[in-house]
Amino acid sequence: MSIRYVGAQLGLLILVLSGTIAAVGVGSAVAQVLGNAGEAAASRALLATAVIGIALGFGLWRTGRRAGGQLGRREAMLLVAAGWLVGAALSALPYRLWASVEALGEPADRPFRSFVDCYFEAMSGLTTTGASVLSDVTMVPGSLLLWRALTQWLGGLGIIVLFVAVLPSLGVGGKRVFRIESPGPTPEGVRPKIQETARVLWLIYVGLSLAEVLALKVLGFSWFESVCHTFATLATGGFSTHNTSIGAMHSAAADVVVIMFMLLAGVNFGIYYHLIRKRWRAAYRDPELRLYLGVVFVGFLIVAGHLLTHTIHTTVGEQVRPSIGSAVRYGLFQTVSLQTTTGFCTADFNQWPAAARTVLVLLMFVGASAGSTGGGIKIVRCLITAKVLWGEMERVFRPNVIRVVKIGDTPVDSDLRLATLCYVIIIALLFAGGGIALLVLEQGQDIDVVTAITASAATLNNIGPGLGLVGAVEHYGWFSKPSKLVLSLLMVLGRLEVYAIAVLFLPRFWLRE
Amino acid sequence: MSIRYVGAQLGLLILVLSGTIAAVGVGSAVAQVLGNAGEAAASRALLATAVIGIALGFGLWRTGRRAGGQLGRREAMLLVAAGWLVGAALSALPYRLWASVEALGEPADRPFRSFVDCYFEAMSGLTTTGASVLSDVTMVPGSLLLWRALTQWLGGLGIIVLFVAVLPSLGVGGKRVFRIESPGPTPEGVRPKIQETARVLWLIYVGLSLAEVLALKVLGFSWFESVCHTFATLATGGFSTHNTSIGAMHSAAADVVVIMFMLLAGVNFGIYYHLIRKRWRAAYRDPELRLYLGVVFVGFLIVAGHLLTHTIHTTVGEQVRPSIGSAVRYGLFQTVSLQTTTGFCTADFNQWPAAARTVLVLLMFVGASAGSTGGGIKIVRCLITAKVLWGEMERVFRPNVIRVVKIGDTPVDSDLRLATLCYVIIIALLFAGGGIALLVLEQGQDIDVVTAITASAATLNNIGPGLGLVGAVEHYGWFSKPSKLVLSLLMVLGRLEVYAIAVLFLPRFWLRE
Repeated sequence: MSIRYVGAQLGLLILVLSGTIAAVGVGSAVAQVLGNAGEAAASRALLATAVIGIALGFGLWRTGRRAGGQLGRREAMLLVAAGWLVGAALSALPYRLWASVEALGEPADRPFRSFVDCYFEAMSGLTTTGASVLSDVTMVPGSLLLWRALTQWLGGLGIIVLFVAVLPSLGVGGKRVFRIESPGPTPEGVRPKIQETARVLWLIYVGLSLAEVLALKVLGFSWFESVCHTFATLATGGFSTHNTSIGAMHSAAADVVVIMFMLLAGVNFGIYYHLIRKRWRAAYRDPELRLYLGVVFVGFLIVAGHLLTHTIHTTVGEQVRPSIGSAVRYGLFQTVSLQTTTGFCTADFNQWPAAARTVLVLLMFVGASAGSTGGGIKIVRCLITAKVLWGEMERVFRPNVIRVVKIGDTPVDSDLRLATLCYVIIIALLFAGGGIALLVLEQGQDIDVVTAITASAATLNNIGPGLGLVGAVEHYGWFSKPSKLVLSLLMVLGRLEVYAIAVLFLPRFWLRE
Repeated sequence: MSIRYVGAQLGLLILVLSGTIAAVGVGSAVAQVLGNAGEAAASRALLATAVIGIALGFGLWRTGRRAGGQLGRREAMLLVAAGWLVGAALSALPYRLWASVEALGEPADRPFRSFVDCYFEAMSGLTTTGASVLSDVTMVPGSLLLWRALTQWLGGLGIIVLFVAVLPSLGVGGKRVFRIESPGPTPEGVRPKIQETARVLWLIYVGLSLAEVLALKVLGFSWFESVCHTFATLATGGFSTHNTSIGAMHSAAADVVVIMFMLLAGVNFGIYYHLIRKRWRAAYRDPELRLYLGVVFVGFLIVAGHLLTHTIHTTVGEQVRPSIGSAVRYGLFQTVSLQTTTGFCTADFNQWPAAARTVLVLLMFVGASAGSTGGGIKIVRCLITAKVLWGEMERVFRPNVIRVVKIGDTPVDSDLRLATLCYVIIIALLFAGGGIALLVLEQGQDIDVVTAITASAATLNNIGPGLGLVGAVEHYGWFSKPSKLVLSLLMVLGRLEVYAIAVLFLPRFWLRE
């Protein structure tokens, strides 16, 4: 393991992140000069973080750049894991520095009063979870809210590039699951293809972002609101600049726009690649896309059906009488938001009927498509698992019939079948372990089981809001520090699909080959 | 599918069951003649059931005996499924008939006032679950309590014989998991071996039963109590003739005897076969046996550790001050009882600290050894799953290393690996599905999530008591009828290890080959 070589690469990554922070800091300083007094502390915090980051990144790069080594499989995994863990720490620093400069109200009420809180918020951003420790986001200056939204956008893109460019070469069987490329032998080699793919994905992501910003702007929102919510939508993140999330916009048109872009963000970005290449048939016939839309639709029907006779409490505190229109509007928004693992809210779904809540929690686990910015187990894994279970059932009474499990026209080989089942079991174990850890850590506070298990599900699957004390209109600030660290770990495990983080705990990972 | 041929075999099975019921009925009638007035209704109910059963069984046998056909794979599965579903109905009949003859108190308080209640109780017996609808077992005459305990003993034996004699030929990969025979080629054919094995298992089961009856009798219990509790112990069932379970015996010596026999019942009976054959080394080196005892021991340490400073409420309502002695006595009993999936209680573990309760619930899923009378996922499956997950983790950064998963010296082939993971996922899905079904069905009653999910876990894994409203000193009588049917289904699914019941829902199962 070439630790120093990995360090040098990590240094470069930190430099990029620091540059972004510096840019936001400069914007904040300009706003301050233009008369926004609230940015005084924030601009200093952001710029100080940038300086620290640049020093750290440069130091790491200097130390390691001459070290021999190459980015093998283990080095790549270590780089990804360290990048996220250290990146979250750097992203948390502006919050912490700002809180120590700005003295707001009573110490106990101040946001970001401990580094663990800030780390939680930064990890929640980068992993596009959207769970927040803030009870009142309006206490935080605009530049930090922009940075918060930007962490989601970066994390959302990062994950796609990671899957496309890194994971296939890591051989997690990822390439076949995240079939960005059409199956079968191709004339080009792997390397130029990955670079080209990454470039196209960048363009798609930026293009979709521009489209949403403009759509929201046209609907009458400020540039700031439009940009922040766009970042949070396309990353399936869910951070908002309002305590009441999207509900604060009081606009059915905004709901529709956000629903649309959440849905688009939950699609495998390979589909857009197909579309750009004019491979309409491949996009149209994609089994994951069809199942994704089908699951959203069925989930929506069940949820909306239960809302038909139910008074809906919006996040801004209005009570909407039962009607077909309200059931469709709020039911569709929440179904799409939770299945795509975004976590935006327009209504307090914690008060919805048990059956609707249950469906929403189940959808959290199903998640969005593979190769999208969304989290969860992912549609295609659920499909493979279902097909394998079905085949196994039949094998009991027909042991000699050999069934080939196929996704579309692509056969799923036995390695991938086993890997998929392993992943599902690991997610189930992490979910249960997370819930149990929270129950034990918060024993004194007497938190209820629903809060504990939905907090575990909502962080592991990168959604954000759960039920009970972490419901739509609640926040995660009241958890103890150890619990917040557990939740941060669940977020990054879920985001990096477990293995990149989990292997760090294997002694054999660190052994010399 | 030769339905009529299966019917004939089912008829024979019903005849055997009816004969057993008749024997208990005759005993009850004798007791009545000897002056036990409480047996008047019970003896009539039992004998009437026997007559109905003999008529039904004979009819089925007459109809089908001349039908051509053979017991192929699907026929065998159908026979097993139908045997359990119909067998439970017949076993329920004495309860229902007794309740309609005997008029006790207010109708609403009467035990067994609906057939669903009786079916639940009978299924709970045959599947060796031990969950009861009875709030007060002392209202039920002795002969019916004996019959209740006997259903467990029959179910416990049935399951072993099923695995040994039927499942290997069903090709569920069962033979390799339940490796009763030493691996490798053997000179004898399969058939005489299975018969011989079944005979030896019978002898072991009867021998252990006699030993426990005598041990309990020596400790001063009545023959009736000794026999009923022995039936419930060796089947890992958990029905008691007291509302307060084993706690009613007020005897540490009895606790020790019951702990010992619960542990023995949770061992793979193949180990005893090894011992009889003087294959000491094979028994001693068995990896499942070692892990089984290890898990029990670690679970006990954690549970007892949390009880050191905790006042224990026994099932008879005594408060035992914290001490090492009480922590060991009650902690060990409950750990062994729940891990072996027996479900006997000496203390109300529902009041224990959260960490201890959590460990107990986790042990419910781990369960006893394969090839024992216990339920749960089974130790050997957990071991295979853990090894596969571990290997998969390593494969991420070492894709070219081929690791052979072994249990002891026996390699686990890829089919069995996949089947094991499938089984674990199916249990997790059934557990979640059961919990959700109960929450939705009992929506009006506002049952808590802990009650719903532990009721699902305690029936699916064939334990009996859970937490909350189905805790150690509670019962299942308050559930609605639909919920009781769901719970009955979970019990039989868990007991037959899912497939035998689940395939009935596959349309392809019923198709002509």
